[in-house]
Amino acid sequence: MKIDILSLFPEMFDGFLNTSIIKRAIDSQIVEVNIHDFRKFADNKHKKVDDYPYGGGQGMVLMCQPIVDCLKTITTSKSFVILMSPQGQTLKQSISVQLSKYEHIVIICGHYEGFDERIRDYVDMEISIGDYILTGGELASMVVCDSIIRLLDGTIREISHEDDSFSEGLLEYPQYTRPYEYDGNCVPDILLSGHHENIRKWRLKQSLLKTYHKRPDLLQNKELTKEELKILQEIKEND
Amino acid sequence: MKIDILSLFPEMFDGFLNTSIIKRAIDSQIVEVNIHDFRKFADNKHKKVDDYPYGGGQGMVLMCQPIVDCLKTITTSKSFVILMSPQGQTLKQSISVQLSKYEHIVIICGHYEGFDERIRDYVDMEISIGDYILTGGELASMVVCDSIIRLLDGTIREISHEDDSFSEGLLEYPQYTRPYEYDGNCVPDILLSGHHENIRKWRLKQSLLKTYHKRPDLLQNKELTKEELKILQEIKEND
Repeated sequence: MKIDILSLFPEMFDGFLNTSIIKRAIDSQIVEVNIHDFRKFADNKHKKVDDYPYGGGQGMVLMCQPIVDCLKTITTSKSFVILMSPQGQTLKQSISVQLSKYEHIVIICGHYEGFDERIRDYVDMEISIGDYILTGGELASMVVCDSIIRLLDGTIREISHEDDSFSEGLLEYPQYTRPYEYDGNCVPDILLSGHHENIRKWRLKQSLLKTYHKRPDLLQNKELTKEELKILQEIKEND
Repeated sequence: MKIDILSLFPEMFDGFLNTSIIKRAIDSQIVEVNIHDFRKFADNKHKKVDDYPYGGGQGMVLMCQPIVDCLKTITTSKSFVILMSPQGQTLKQSISVQLSKYEHIVIICGHYEGFDERIRDYVDMEISIGDYILTGGELASMVVCDSIIRLLDGTIREISHEDDSFSEGLLEYPQYTRPYEYDGNCVPDILLSGHHENIRKWRLKQSLLKTYHKRPDLLQNKELTKEELKILQEIKEND
């Protein structure tokens, strides 16, 4: 997969691209990530990328020309162009899964002022990472990249995906590691029993309990197994 | 405000802390941000921070000791400790506003494996930035910081906040800047009319239109003015 990101702050991506799992995925050629400073494409002598809004108002508005001209040098018929925007669809795991199947993704980061509405004509999808305001689209674009790249074959051991929160539609059960007692709190005995089936059942119940109490909305969107339905019924009865 | 972040990947924060609005807020002493590598606090000779899970299973689990010992050197009675976790409350603008009022925030970033459940005992709040899986809490913690820091007095000109999507509960109206015509598309004539009241009304209607079509859920959580209700009624009738 290839990801091209358009940003006025390319240096913001250094840490992200040079750390841990993302760096490993790049080094292993699982993904190629390029950052493009679209200021370089501004066709005016001061390299201005924004201008005053028509109709008046505070703040500056990103102009079409630098972004669209930058896009033209990058995109092909196989490219999927994403605009990071508070107006976009809210990112969720199923969107990341869908995006991870594209060969070439292009992401446009606005900064904290708005952008010319006509830029939307060059975009296949608008994405927001949540209902909160950020100073720009840079962090949001890294979040999108991170969630996609970790799904690509070879980035993370396959088995890891399956245990994750959201991928199974339930929050994760409590995990414990050594020491057995920490600050007066002990690991639940069941986990030391060596009885795999009981441990599996306990973990499933804990997952359902956590999800029921913290994120009941997730249960509505999930197809529950017979076993899960039975445990959930017990949880509701004891509530 | 002071923000301390516990992370195994402190270098991931370099770009974030050295760019644009966040850098300016730090330079202006509006906020102090420190990154702490809790690996340094591991009391074993190999500086191990994770271990196998009790009860078996894939992956490693972050241990209590390094994180809690690191916390102890940082927190005071005034600190508010946040754990970045898929199990947390989903971040939204109202949470960022609430967090922006604290004097001292501490954020713990897990990485892609889980952490010992007992770490939750040392935490005031768990936050998730959305229903998607990331390789770690680092990007998520930057998102939280960014959304908080931009709200602090002096970071951004006051007036800017008010126009933002989500802060008014509506998506932003379309913005346009020069040129008047771009690639065959012209700026709506109303914006060139110079009639401020008509422009205001047009923008309000466009905001309501966008919100109605793209994020109708936002309208349910907003107290609408008489004018907004009337426009929304017209929109629904024409739909």
